[in-house]
Amino acid sequence: MMGVLKGMRVVEGSAFVAIPLAGMTLAQMGADVIRFDRLEGGLDYTRWPVTQDGRSLFWAGLNKGKRSIAIDMKNPRGRELITEIICAPGEDAGLFLTNLRVRGWMDYETLSTHRPDLVMVSLLGDRHGRPAVDYTVNPSVGFPDATGPEGSTDPVAHVLPAWDCIAGNMAVSGLLAAERHRLRTGAGQSVELTLKDVAAAMLGNLGIIGEVAVNGVDRPKGGNALYGAYGQDFVCADGERVMVIGLTERQWRGLLKVTGMADRMAALELELGESLSDEGARWRHRARITQVLAPWFASRAPAEFAEAFEAAGITWSTFRSFARAVREDPDLSPENPLFSELDQPGIGRYAVPGSPFSFSAEGREPPVPAPALGQHTEEILADVVRLPEGEIGRLFDEGIVKGA
Amino acid sequence: MMGVLKGMRVVEGSAFVAIPLAGMTLAQMGADVIRFDRLEGGLDYTRWPVTQDGRSLFWAGLNKGKRSIAIDMKNPRGRELITEIICAPGEDAGLFLTNLRVRGWMDYETLSTHRPDLVMVSLLGDRHGRPAVDYTVNPSVGFPDATGPEGSTDPVAHVLPAWDCIAGNMAVSGLLAAERHRLRTGAGQSVELTLKDVAAAMLGNLGIIGEVAVNGVDRPKGGNALYGAYGQDFVCADGERVMVIGLTERQWRGLLKVTGMADRMAALELELGESLSDEGARWRHRARITQVLAPWFASRAPAEFAEAFEAAGITWSTFRSFARAVREDPDLSPENPLFSELDQPGIGRYAVPGSPFSFSAEGREPPVPAPALGQHTEEILADVVRLPEGEIGRLFDEGIVKGA
Repeated sequence: MMGVLKGMRVVEGSAFVAIPLAGMTLAQMGADVIRFDRLEGGLDYTRWPVTQDGRSLFWAGLNKGKRSIAIDMKNPRGRELITEIICAPGEDAGLFLTNLRVRGWMDYETLSTHRPDLVMVSLLGDRHGRPAVDYTVNPSVGFPDATGPEGSTDPVAHVLPAWDCIAGNMAVSGLLAAERHRLRTGAGQSVELTLKDVAAAMLGNLGIIGEVAVNGVDRPKGGNALYGAYGQDFVCADGERVMVIGLTERQWRGLLKVTGMADRMAALELELGESLSDEGARWRHRARITQVLAPWFASRAPAEFAEAFEAAGITWSTFRSFARAVREDPDLSPENPLFSELDQPGIGRYAVPGSPFSFSAEGREPPVPAPALGQHTEEILADVVRLPEGEIGRLFDEGIVKGA
Repeated sequence: MMGVLKGMRVVEGSAFVAIPLAGMTLAQMGADVIRFDRLEGGLDYTRWPVTQDGRSLFWAGLNKGKRSIAIDMKNPRGRELITEIICAPGEDAGLFLTNLRVRGWMDYETLSTHRPDLVMVSLLGDRHGRPAVDYTVNPSVGFPDATGPEGSTDPVAHVLPAWDCIAGNMAVSGLLAAERHRLRTGAGQSVELTLKDVAAAMLGNLGIIGEVAVNGVDRPKGGNALYGAYGQDFVCADGERVMVIGLTERQWRGLLKVTGMADRMAALELELGESLSDEGARWRHRARITQVLAPWFASRAPAEFAEAFEAAGITWSTFRSFARAVREDPDLSPENPLFSELDQPGIGRYAVPGSPFSFSAEGREPPVPAPALGQHTEEILADVVRLPEGEIGRLFDEGIVKGA
């Protein structure tokens, strides 16, 4: 594979979303990413969604373009081999990403005795060493309590594993930043990140901690409304639901113009004695604004206004299920250069995304399927660990490593 | 500021979440990040949450540790100055992050005539050039339709701007990857990313597109359940709600052991004729499993089992509001080295997060407040553009630039 990171080699010991995503992101930028797993596959090897035959669409989705080696990690020789893969020489190697519980032989202290300039990025649960997953971090920082219909008291958890996706992309940044630092100073290092801290930091970054500490308020549920300005979902004449945005002054004016509601809104402003040009005023009076706009949407189907909305540059979208989105949206198909239809062995042929980045110097690379477990065991032992053929054969015979 | 990226200079022209987050992430790793804004502040300068005085806690949260320059961008000399700041010489400079609608003078083609090795990372709405925000991208790819109580038909949008947070962190990776490539080849480039493509790619990466295309199914709402294995929220005796995880075999066994439900679950397995050691079986039979476990939680308060859960290494958490989380959780306070209490001028003193990264080679840097708008105008014109003092004075006098 070409790509801006061509020449870099990263070793990944992982499971689930964040670190597999980090490794794949690097692979899709051109790095040689080696994922090692125990002989029977990692904890995520059969993670749902799965096909009718039990093959994991999830695993296939998060390991595209990597090389796979399967090793018995309980065997001392297996552990030695992993150490040699992680610490193999090369100016652009010695980069290790993990979210496994690393202890003893696989911790930074031990590994760096084999390669002092090792860069190791570890994603942990929380700072106390406790396990955590997206599903537990999210309730603990408060998002489900602020999600869902106004007035409801039941918490609603997000379905997208957002904290994992954020943490995984941060792991990429942390690795690239530490590698840059190594190039200038010669020094490797351990980079640690916890899923809980990623969420805690965003809570502060978005002003939510300040809102509690300075304003002394708790944010109530606001339904599907855009927080802090105007943005609302509407049910249309045909039952379709749309999301319409009036976040900026320009979006707000555009929305009034295309719906012909400028006069009605001016009357509302007179009644309120307040200008709705102020985003905070739009937020506070959102229920009144929605009252004015709702009948307009209720009497039209999106097909009747879509063209006018596009022409006016309105920021809006329809709500639809995953299946409808995949069926209807060319942006989720090979019409979008992000996607290629490709054959994932054991699963089938379907639209698969490459990297969302478009690097002008290298162009877009089409996606590469995920490996079969152990598909590259032999070649990695030869080209990275540089073992002679006979020894590789013995490792297979003794069951210390496995092929696909 | 110290940090692994010390010496790097990044210029940011941005508003809202993603690119401000990207710039701040780089600043918190030690880069000199210069955010330029129009004289009255960018589109996000008064974004909610705000204090009673209308100061944006959001802006303060997403611009920590940057330098700020305020320039009249409608003035040709103002545009020239921004060009000079973006394209200023220096091996570790010439790095530009933006989500502004760049056209003409601020597009890559024009800017790179001033500095051919410029690296410019642009975040756009969608590949058709249409505007998009987190609130529109999310419904369009299907997540709100799959979120919320089982059986309900109303879509529920997430409150965390997850796509923005993901895209912002990707912008960091894209910039670092392109800068690495420049160091090796001498070539700059334009790196483009769209918010819609970031979401589209994750839909594929998580196996959801495959689920539709290969299995032909649409994912229904599953409430707060962990998808594909076992994980459920329970209401406890005191009305508290907890999330409990049985994703891995180890978590599942631990949960049964600490609740004393192993025998009951074995009876259920006999009845079902299926082993619940299989994560897919746990998912399919989650309602039955929950039926067995619910009375246990309903008859206890979390205080009664928290210690036993911790001792057993159970993966779990409580649900709580933002305010309760901030009040009760030491991880969201300066007890956690991630946070420092600091004074944000104009707003007040509260716990502010630094970088969630812990880089062993550089140690943790405490967070630095956000600048006042234009706080560094004078020094940036002197140390980056290298204008003589007299000319800087004239720019202030003519109202082309502004200080804090």
